[in-house]
Amino acid sequence: MFGGSLGSPRLDRLVRQLGRLPGIGTKSATRIALYLLQAGDEESSQLSQLILDMKAHVQSCERCGAITETKTCSICKDVRRANGQLCVVEQAADIFSVERAAVFRGRYHVLGGLLSPLDGIEPEQLRFDTLVHRVCEEGVKEVVLALSGSVEGEATALYVARTLGGRQIRVTRLATGIPVGGHLDFVDDLTLERAFSGRRSLDWGSP
Amino acid sequence: MFGGSLGSPRLDRLVRQLGRLPGIGTKSATRIALYLLQAGDEESSQLSQLILDMKAHVQSCERCGAITETKTCSICKDVRRANGQLCVVEQAADIFSVERAAVFRGRYHVLGGLLSPLDGIEPEQLRFDTLVHRVCEEGVKEVVLALSGSVEGEATALYVARTLGGRQIRVTRLATGIPVGGHLDFVDDLTLERAFSGRRSLDWGSP
Repeated sequence: MFGGSLGSPRLDRLVRQLGRLPGIGTKSATRIALYLLQAGDEESSQLSQLILDMKAHVQSCERCGAITETKTCSICKDVRRANGQLCVVEQAADIFSVERAAVFRGRYHVLGGLLSPLDGIEPEQLRFDTLVHRVCEEGVKEVVLALSGSVEGEATALYVARTLGGRQIRVTRLATGIPVGGHLDFVDDLTLERAFSGRRSLDWGSP
Repeated sequence: MFGGSLGSPRLDRLVRQLGRLPGIGTKSATRIALYLLQAGDEESSQLSQLILDMKAHVQSCERCGAITETKTCSICKDVRRANGQLCVVEQAADIFSVERAAVFRGRYHVLGGLLSPLDGIEPEQLRFDTLVHRVCEEGVKEVVLALSGSVEGEATALYVARTLGGRQIRVTRLATGIPVGGHLDFVDDLTLERAFSGRRSLDWGSP
């Protein structure tokens, strides 16, 4: 009997390492490792090389914190982007979610996390100072907070609003409510409460 | 807008390559790539190295076709294993499923696939000749076919039975029937038909 081993210590090690990736359990890791074993040498060496390549060349935009291979990201370099609006997100990956929806034409600012004193994440560890600096330098008129609806997200939003308070800018948050196509059944009470308090009259657009 | 891109061609390439792995869609691939981007250099270089290492050192056992890092696998080398029984499986990975259940104490033989004339898989491409050779050389008394219940599995099982026919050996197949804990509701008609025709009387073990 192998006792959970695949008959090769190297294969077992690869399975364990793959199993650390997000969303990959032992079963998926085994399947992937066996697939790589049977695939051509080119495919596996390409994957191996791409991981190293990515780590060596991908960095954070020095201005907004987005993912880029150059010093400044393509959005920061894009002159067609509105300078007056700044969308604040938690992680660089969140930018892609907003971009995919194609609803925002301003620029971004990545905080690099959310305030969480219990986990030891204090304002100094996040990119707040560069946010304040950019708001002053770039003539920002509106800061849109596109943060998650968690307790940490709320706390961070309040912190930003307080930090930027007193300046002549608007600080907004994304609306909380029922998702498009979502059933009331599946919406939690707090979301429903916010959806009620944030309800909008339907008469706009009427003659 | 990025148009499905993550802002870095290298990251996009890694996402595409990860998306080819079994069970990994674009969303999981993106999540894994971003995880590797944020993880320490050590973790990603380790994964990259383990893939290369595995490909360089893991091979097929020259006797049974199992996964091994040496010429002969640990099961073939194990003298406590019964020589008289040979379990025929489709892929090397199937050996682990049987070993995990700890129900078989003989040796294995990996065919490397199933007969499928439509896909161009003919007997010559599978390890049938080495099977016949082993049956003669190793004094095999029983060949247990642990193949999948698909049409190709059936065809391959019949082919093996016919090829080994005439010799003084037993060729058996794993039973088809209702899985332990399975409901009749979820069992298809063909399985139910086989479960009926393969029904066993409950009087064995009675005094």
